[in-house]
Amino acid sequence: MQAIDLAEKFAAFDEHWRPRVAAQLNGQDVRLVKVQGTFPWHSHAEAEEMFLVWKGRFRVEFRDRTVALGPGQFIVVPRGVEHRTAADEEAEVLIFEPSEVVNTGDAPTSEFTAPMGAMI
Amino acid sequence: MQAIDLAEKFAAFDEHWRPRVAAQLNGQDVRLVKVQGTFPWHSHAEAEEMFLVWKGRFRVEFRDRTVALGPGQFIVVPRGVEHRTAADEEAEVLIFEPSEVVNTGDAPTSEFTAPMGAMI
Repeated sequence: MQAIDLAEKFAAFDEHWRPRVAAQLNGQDVRLVKVQGTFPWHSHAEAEEMFLVWKGRFRVEFRDRTVALGPGQFIVVPRGVEHRTAADEEAEVLIFEPSEVVNTGDAPTSEFTAPMGAMI
Repeated sequence: MQAIDLAEKFAAFDEHWRPRVAAQLNGQDVRLVKVQGTFPWHSHAEAEEMFLVWKGRFRVEFRDRTVALGPGQFIVVPRGVEHRTAADEEAEVLIFEPSEVVNTGDAPTSEFTAPMGAMI
């Protein structure tokens, strides 16, 4: 029951594609991630994912189109839909999704696959 | 699968204490609410609630203390904990909570009790 400051939390880590869990509620995680470059294609069979941009420019790419997002814009990716995320320059993104979601979904485990439950 | 812009959504309604549902995922709502004044005391026995301030100054008051929040700050209110929200001047807040949550929780139905599922 305390205030959590997004700017302060984002300032506390540097790695790209390594979400930090800023809060958990109702089985969901509030994850903060810094992104730069392009993430592998994947989908999540059992979970929807929300990406809300806090800072920078961010893209969610689908096989047939790309959705570009800036600060204060978000998207919900439906379950089972193949997607990848990308950013030309570093961006900061808030993710809402169930706590059991692995970031790379059904893609093979790789250097992009982040440890689960890293709190910040 | 489209970009949702918080500023645009907040600009599309005026009433205070009437959350609009901007998105739904995994049984949760992303609700947008404009607040001014003081909301009734209440709790939610079965749900945690997250309040993320988008614009303005906002308070979550508990029986023993008050947490003040500005833009980019959030709090998670645990289930069963009595609280009320308040703002001296209009503020814009994003709420993340299960879709079945009634805004006034266990408080008597009043003029603050908002219609459920009002999408925007």
